[in-house]
Amino acid sequence: MNNNISPAGCLERLRVLDRERMHISRAAALLQWDQETYLPSGGIEERAEQLAVLEGLAHERLINNEVGELLGKLRDAFSLDNAVHNAQDEFPADDFIRVLHRDYEKAVKIPVDFVRECAKAEGLSQAAWIEARKHNNFAAFAPHLEKMLDFAKQKAAFWGWERTKLYDGLLDYYEPSLGVHELTAIFGPLRDRLQLLLQKIAAKPNPGNVFINHNFEKAKQEAFCREVLSGIGFDGKRGRMDISAHPFTTALGFNDVRITTRYAASDPLSGLFSVIHEGGHAFYELGLDKSLRYSSLAEGTSMGIHESQSRLWENVIGRSRVFWEPWYPRLKDYFSPELGTVDFESFYRTVNNVVPGPIRVEADEVSYSLHIILRFELEEKLFSGKLSVNELPEAWNAGMKDYLNVECTGDAEGVLQDVHWSMGAFGYFPSYALGNLYALQFWNKLQEDIGTTDQMLRRRDYGTIHSWLRDNIHHKGRCKKPAELIMDVTGNLLSADSFFRYIEQKYTELYGL
Amino acid sequence: MNNNISPAGCLERLRVLDRERMHISRAAALLQWDQETYLPSGGIEERAEQLAVLEGLAHERLINNEVGELLGKLRDAFSLDNAVHNAQDEFPADDFIRVLHRDYEKAVKIPVDFVRECAKAEGLSQAAWIEARKHNNFAAFAPHLEKMLDFAKQKAAFWGWERTKLYDGLLDYYEPSLGVHELTAIFGPLRDRLQLLLQKIAAKPNPGNVFINHNFEKAKQEAFCREVLSGIGFDGKRGRMDISAHPFTTALGFNDVRITTRYAASDPLSGLFSVIHEGGHAFYELGLDKSLRYSSLAEGTSMGIHESQSRLWENVIGRSRVFWEPWYPRLKDYFSPELGTVDFESFYRTVNNVVPGPIRVEADEVSYSLHIILRFELEEKLFSGKLSVNELPEAWNAGMKDYLNVECTGDAEGVLQDVHWSMGAFGYFPSYALGNLYALQFWNKLQEDIGTTDQMLRRRDYGTIHSWLRDNIHHKGRCKKPAELIMDVTGNLLSADSFFRYIEQKYTELYGL
Repeated sequence: MNNNISPAGCLERLRVLDRERMHISRAAALLQWDQETYLPSGGIEERAEQLAVLEGLAHERLINNEVGELLGKLRDAFSLDNAVHNAQDEFPADDFIRVLHRDYEKAVKIPVDFVRECAKAEGLSQAAWIEARKHNNFAAFAPHLEKMLDFAKQKAAFWGWERTKLYDGLLDYYEPSLGVHELTAIFGPLRDRLQLLLQKIAAKPNPGNVFINHNFEKAKQEAFCREVLSGIGFDGKRGRMDISAHPFTTALGFNDVRITTRYAASDPLSGLFSVIHEGGHAFYELGLDKSLRYSSLAEGTSMGIHESQSRLWENVIGRSRVFWEPWYPRLKDYFSPELGTVDFESFYRTVNNVVPGPIRVEADEVSYSLHIILRFELEEKLFSGKLSVNELPEAWNAGMKDYLNVECTGDAEGVLQDVHWSMGAFGYFPSYALGNLYALQFWNKLQEDIGTTDQMLRRRDYGTIHSWLRDNIHHKGRCKKPAELIMDVTGNLLSADSFFRYIEQKYTELYGL
Repeated sequence: MNNNISPAGCLERLRVLDRERMHISRAAALLQWDQETYLPSGGIEERAEQLAVLEGLAHERLINNEVGELLGKLRDAFSLDNAVHNAQDEFPADDFIRVLHRDYEKAVKIPVDFVRECAKAEGLSQAAWIEARKHNNFAAFAPHLEKMLDFAKQKAAFWGWERTKLYDGLLDYYEPSLGVHELTAIFGPLRDRLQLLLQKIAAKPNPGNVFINHNFEKAKQEAFCREVLSGIGFDGKRGRMDISAHPFTTALGFNDVRITTRYAASDPLSGLFSVIHEGGHAFYELGLDKSLRYSSLAEGTSMGIHESQSRLWENVIGRSRVFWEPWYPRLKDYFSPELGTVDFESFYRTVNNVVPGPIRVEADEVSYSLHIILRFELEEKLFSGKLSVNELPEAWNAGMKDYLNVECTGDAEGVLQDVHWSMGAFGYFPSYALGNLYALQFWNKLQEDIGTTDQMLRRRDYGTIHSWLRDNIHHKGRCKKPAELIMDVTGNLLSADSFFRYIEQKYTELYGL
């Protein structure tokens, strides 16, 4: 590299390298999307190799020496001079350098051999998890979990976290600046309040399920989902919707964000709520400012903020009374034999039925965060040594009984239900609950700014909501850290109060508590 | 690179590099497949960039110094020693080195700047061609065609062809060892014989079209296509069928070969014949020997041989009387209001109706090769200087009149109809006619070896045909050059005799000549 290259020249070169890497990553994301949607079964083995090659190329492009040198020069230059920033038009060069530097440091500190060893062990671990879950046998998976835990600890240590703070390191990776201390302070009281509310609800009669004993044709479900997705503002020229075993959202380009769902014949809404949830993720990616595109800034700023957008749409909007007032008649048009005689109130109660159960992804709004808080507490204990891997199933079952009054009948629907640990993704679960908290803080501020949204939702007019979310959250991509974003937008730190008040109010009314 | 590395070590390293490059190319092919099938319209611009990055990476991996050095060492080693070959189990190391060396030489001789300049000019040229075709205006495209012609000549010159042999160089690129001299000797007499036959047919009454005045529902067409595709032996675990504007086949992996088609409401068979045609290409890719997979040998050996497989299935098998005997009743099941009263003979005559027209891709079996021979003759004249770009439309129209008795009413349905020249793909067209010739040479030999296929086709039993094609042609991938293959399999050189005899016999019977 030419040592006399100007800061502006360094920045330009870095942006070229970053753009190329983003293109390779998007291509890898397409390979993955295709694998989940259209890949013929015979192609799976080769696809894994193709993916490994592309991911390796993207990784190489992040950790190479030139990137390190350019970042070093630019960080020096930026402490002295802001000329580069101004020269780059709209592009937020300082945020770019900060974010890329974070990614670079996270990647470069992990030895290449370790990455390879991890990938191999993860493959074996996931295969073992699938088998163990099939046979309801935690013991067969335990040695792999032990190894994944050890790898996760090593990873945090490579990043420079001290021995007693390794779990903080992983939490910080997914949600910067939120560690064990902060999360415990927020999750602890929330857990107690939700537990109490659940007990009150359990004392009331169950409102029943109006979908029971019916079969909801999947083709009709899909047609309804497409109508709703387009109705809430998803632009078919900038994305698509397909079917996969597990719903997900993937950004394959600035104007190409794809979601997936799946349909259950017994429940006409399970597929739809996945569509609205993934739609919320997609709106985030589609709302990024154009100046960020093709760069590392063109992504959601954290898992928790991303999840706030999906949960806002799925739950706060999508399970509200005013949302369904105009949509329920349309649903009835699709399924008149099944729902023709079902009144709105009974339907609405089914949509918001609180029935604590063992499975996280099927949980209602009140139970859901408790599933997450249990996982957070168990992870914390695994890392601090208060709990061993072998003791995990017992601690899991005790927690489920304590928090949700649910008896797990086996490991498959208990400690083995989620894929995350088998991949070594410790520290990831809290994002799901954080999404709920952020969502309500944003939502309350949105109402303050634009007034009550009830009439808009009754009119199926989502434009003002989209504008507010885009201008306040989506536009910025990774330019704002999550803690800055929540403070800038709402004037408050992260807190569970808005979320709990929302839950308490909604379910007090619903259950006449 | 370590200079003391053994031949076996060199080979192993070369195979690793080649395998990685193949994976990148397959990933690029997926990006392209997605672009033609499912990409949201907004994503096109970014997709072009993603593709350019992956294609650039694949190209770099072919032309880099290490590949050149390894090939050099191996070519030396192989003249002395065959130990490497034997050490590599099933893998045909000598063919691998030969084929990779050819690809390497073809790529490395073209300067990187020239490649970039070409790609840019091609983009502009294609855009100009689309506009020119829309407005029926050859003059607007002529300067681009001039440039494409010049680039094509330069390319052949870079490969080392002398000034008077540049067109030979391009022909050789697509169909090794067939040049102007060989093709003229074959195409000239074929042209005269086909022209004469067409005149005889034109003197007979037109058998009419039984599809006219009907509307064939596309969903039913698709269902029928899927039934036929699966019926003729396409394995859904190793491929898929989708819809695109222009039908194509793409190999995304050894066990992932995809075809596309499109449906016309006015013609229930236009989509189907594309399916059978692309199916023939797919059978070739799916029939490769497993030992070749993930390597540069795992492709069809030439465009002409590839086209022989698609045309064999589409025309020789797919438009035969015995093929339709069992399938026509099934087609009637799908379209009973439209075809219920149409007898087999009238249907069969519609399938094989000879109506010369201006458009190549809509041409019948008798006219088709004449479209190609005209293009070959015009290309040859453009390269030898006997014709200028500006004179092309007139020469085109004169040729169409002379060979097919067709009057072109404008450039859009004349000289501007095909995309090939706008991309600079001179020398490619002959492959289509060569496919017809090879197909009949193979087919006659197949009948000699396994006996008449009439009863098999009547029983919809395609297994023996597949086995023969696989064992004799598909298995070998690029290990045999096309000229070797046709000689090894049939004992003869390339010739138009089998093809013309087939056409003459079939249409003499059909038209009572």
